[in-house]
Amino acid sequence: MPDHPQHHIKYFWEDLPVGKTLDIGSITVNRDEVIAFASQYDPQPFHLDDAAAAKSMFGKLSASGWHTCAMAMGLMVRGFLHESSSLGSPGLEKLKWLKPVYPGDTLTLKQTITESRPMASRPDVGLTRTLWEMFNQHGEQVLMMDGYGMFRRRVPDPQ
Amino acid sequence: MPDHPQHHIKYFWEDLPVGKTLDIGSITVNRDEVIAFASQYDPQPFHLDDAAAAKSMFGKLSASGWHTCAMAMGLMVRGFLHESSSLGSPGLEKLKWLKPVYPGDTLTLKQTITESRPMASRPDVGLTRTLWEMFNQHGEQVLMMDGYGMFRRRVPDPQ
Repeated sequence: MPDHPQHHIKYFWEDLPVGKTLDIGSITVNRDEVIAFASQYDPQPFHLDDAAAAKSMFGKLSASGWHTCAMAMGLMVRGFLHESSSLGSPGLEKLKWLKPVYPGDTLTLKQTITESRPMASRPDVGLTRTLWEMFNQHGEQVLMMDGYGMFRRRVPDPQ
Repeated sequence: MPDHPQHHIKYFWEDLPVGKTLDIGSITVNRDEVIAFASQYDPQPFHLDDAAAAKSMFGKLSASGWHTCAMAMGLMVRGFLHESSSLGSPGLEKLKWLKPVYPGDTLTLKQTITESRPMASRPDVGLTRTLWEMFNQHGEQVLMMDGYGMFRRRVPDPQ
């Protein structure tokens, strides 16, 4: 496992049992980044322009939902995956954009392991199901994701 | 509806019946953008560095799955939502990253409407459920998303 030297890894699959909760970190949303992201990937007027946003259901300039996901991923990589044996994710079972995210908001991410099982096809890998919950500075949940992750095992299945 | 002048709108909720399929567009994946996106939002070694990527399960430098979603959204906004009465999305029922996406790949997006209903809470808005499918230049599906969208109705419910 040359890309995951064992001495850097705090979390193998075995270290992520069902029920485990981790505080992942926080980020403050930068207005210039909101506009830069939206310009490239989600150029809807309410993510780009104050006047258009004021007339939209968001009331003021808000971040693309995909930018919110990307910010959550940035926190997850820097605050957890870099210390883990992660091998990537096949996808999500659910994603909810629950509240608008605005420049200046401070977003805080936590994760909870909800399922865990060995992968039948790979004795050195386990699968976890994880709930991601991100909240703003008012304690309102802005994002929910329920997805899968693959992690190398500390000890491969003997059979 | 000042942010959606009717004369620019080709697709109201009524114009998106179940079974309707639309070809949304194509994009060729840029290597510098793959690295820029990953540096900010998904700094895992296999999205940043050729040597690390060669040792990973992806085999070579690949785009962040979130970058793939963002590219799909860019196509969707420029190729469809800008001509629609879209009001945003509450979320997804499913997201699958099916194959790695590499710099130089050309990705093509299509959408199919799978459900449609009026919103009980808003007589001027309808909800659609849409399947997004993105393929690479080899005809392999790289991304699947199944999500909801809210669209203004051409004719509000009379009651």
